[in-house]
Amino acid sequence: MQTPGTHLSQMRAAAPLVQNITNYVAMNVMANVMLAAGASPAMVHAAEEVGEFAAFTPALTINIGTLSAPWVGSMLTAAQVMHDRGAPWVLDPVAAGATAFRRETAAALVALRPTVVRGNASEIMALAGLGGRGKGADAADGVEAAEAAARSLAAQTGGVVAVTGPVDFVTDGTRAFRIANGDPMMPRITALGCSLTGVVGAFLVGQPALEATVAALAYYGLAGEVAAETAQGPGSFSVAFLDALHNITPERLTAGARIAAA
Amino acid sequence: MQTPGTHLSQMRAAAPLVQNITNYVAMNVMANVMLAAGASPAMVHAAEEVGEFAAFTPALTINIGTLSAPWVGSMLTAAQVMHDRGAPWVLDPVAAGATAFRRETAAALVALRPTVVRGNASEIMALAGLGGRGKGADAADGVEAAEAAARSLAAQTGGVVAVTGPVDFVTDGTRAFRIANGDPMMPRITALGCSLTGVVGAFLVGQPALEATVAALAYYGLAGEVAAETAQGPGSFSVAFLDALHNITPERLTAGARIAAA
Amino acid sequence: MQTPGTHLSQMRAAAPLVQNITNYVAMNVMANVMLAAGASPAMVHAAEEVGEFAAFTPALTINIGTLSAPWVGSMLTAAQVMHDRGAPWVLDPVAAGATAFRRETAAALVALRPTVVRGNASEIMALAGLGGRGKGADAADGVEAAEAAARSLAAQTGGVVAVTGPVDFVTDGTRAFRIANGDPMMPRITALGCSLTGVVGAFLVGQPALEATVAALAYYGLAGEVAAETAQGPGSFSVAFLDALHNITPERLTAGARIAAA
Repeated sequence: MQTPGTHLSQMRAAAPLVQNITNYVAMNVMANVMLAAGASPAMVHAAEEVGEFAAFTPALTINIGTLSAPWVGSMLTAAQVMHDRGAPWVLDPVAAGATAFRRETAAALVALRPTVVRGNASEIMALAGLGGRGKGADAADGVEAAEAAARSLAAQTGGVVAVTGPVDFVTDGTRAFRIANGDPMMPRITALGCSLTGVVGAFLVGQPALEATVAALAYYGLAGEVAAETAQGPGSFSVAFLDALHNITPERLTAGARIAAA
Repeated sequence: MQTPGTHLSQMRAAAPLVQNITNYVAMNVMANVMLAAGASPAMVHAAEEVGEFAAFTPALTINIGTLSAPWVGSMLTAAQVMHDRGAPWVLDPVAAGATAFRRETAAALVALRPTVVRGNASEIMALAGLGGRGKGADAADGVEAAEAAARSLAAQTGGVVAVTGPVDFVTDGTRAFRIANGDPMMPRITALGCSLTGVVGAFLVGQPALEATVAALAYYGLAGEVAAETAQGPGSFSVAFLDALHNITPERLTAGARIAAA
Repeated sequence: MQTPGTHLSQMRAAAPLVQNITNYVAMNVMANVMLAAGASPAMVHAAEEVGEFAAFTPALTINIGTLSAPWVGSMLTAAQVMHDRGAPWVLDPVAAGATAFRRETAAALVALRPTVVRGNASEIMALAGLGGRGKGADAADGVEAAEAAARSLAAQTGGVVAVTGPVDFVTDGTRAFRIANGDPMMPRITALGCSLTGVVGAFLVGQPALEATVAALAYYGLAGEVAAETAQGPGSFSVAFLDALHNITPERLTAGARIAAA
């Protein structure tokens, strides 16, 4: 298994174009996070072009945060193209359990077998049909409560499922890892979870999904730890976090990653 | 009457979920402002789910900044649900006087009796049918010119009206207060007014509307004063402002609030 | 020819209202950039009001970044109003060559003779029908490769064309200038190009298009240079950049502008 730093190096060398269909809240910060990490984000969601773009993008991410009917059509079109191409795509099922509209949209996307599903515990539990108490975008359940749901969902998609929280849990249904990097300030900044989904998408290009996802999560959490060293609150944390994503070297990531087999 | 700090404590203890239908410019900063203050924002506006979400949200805010026909339907649906539940909701009538589309939308929302209307002087005057010269989102009239309009509008809605500017004016049609906290840099940062509307929404949960609104405005203005102590321009002001929203204690708010009966 | 500082002074004295139809990623940062520079941005794009607003706005900018069918209608309506009024408007043809939808929309807008077209080399080449290899919002071609395309496009529109990159190239089809201000970090921050389009729009109000565009580009690049003096990465660069836009004086701009006839 390659070091996390090697996965970061490979992502930066590829500097992959990644198409993102994400929510209005996240678009700007997600693009900045991906640029700071070293990827090339493209926010393309219109029905008129979403499939044409998906036909050549190396990776796609879909986030159901601010959902509306025309966007659902675009999401399904783009995911279908990636599925048919055998190209990697990531699903971020924001608040999947909150309303019927979200539950149905998330289920239709899961059926298109995302390479990775990344969500908080409440979202992964809702997606696996195992409850979950979250009403908004914030988790109301602990990561450990969602481990069985993650394994079940991975078996269903044939892909990777990542439950993020204080300690992340990542599984492909067979193997599993826990990643302990991160900082408690991260959930107090909007769209950092959504933006992580974009970073995972960038790591997937040309790399094995389970290892790449684990490395992306360790990298992201380590950037949070670096940011916390100087931050005075959520405003300065956000600034230092983008700087850290840009400045963390592969060597520092390999040294600082706290990954354990689960 | 409770101290402003007590209102802040109660808001943070509740950490209320607040549904926001807001404009594209404000979504990210509003979510970050509300998280920094201690609330849990949810940006939910799609016709397919807006009413379902409004049925359980403790508070709702509606902002007409970047208006379009489908969103107007969602706004009216959500406001109607809150009205029927007797639950608190806040209207932010951005640029209400600029176009016929805005005037009509704002009037239809006012008829659903918002718990609080928060706007600048030009917007409140336009809403009360008393003129107002603003063309964009920036005020072209002074707060004092809008006091009569605020009282008239409060009488019409049976709720609270807050006119924000260098010195804010808040009234329920009978009682009135002026809040002198704030900093001249605040209008030079986009969506800080929109984001304040979200903070007011969070303060309303389980608290009396007039007092909660006054406390929210003092808290917000004080955060601006704290930010100004270190800011070098609008970029560093925004960062320090989010930090201050997070770091201001109830004691500091009570000590620093500059509230006077009007 | 007036100094760049004089153009900045005139823009700030006018503090012009500028209507912007831009993409979701850029809206917030563009508004903050324009406010920091001294303009008054208004993000107005809905079919119901876009033409009414365009009838009185001193300047308009149109950006095709996150395109969809209803927005194309709004763009064409607003551009037609400006064309008929003889009022200035700027086109930002983001990723113009990436999909058929973008190529068609950009061509229809070019036919309405934008006062200024501002794009990267790949976008200007695509617009002039001369190739261009960019797939996303990032340039895949050098500025020099696009000079002929810029001259050809300017001849077609009768306006100014600005190709931005490490060294910018601006032409009205007859005269041409190169502007060497800027910093390599700028393309690593999303929507800084889009936001520059808004600043160009603000400079156009009451000023000659070629000179005003050159001054706006020098001012923007100089703010990047100032930001680079203290930035530790893209997060702190963004903060320092907004501060610099606010703090740069006309005198400093005139002294620091690196403009040469081409």
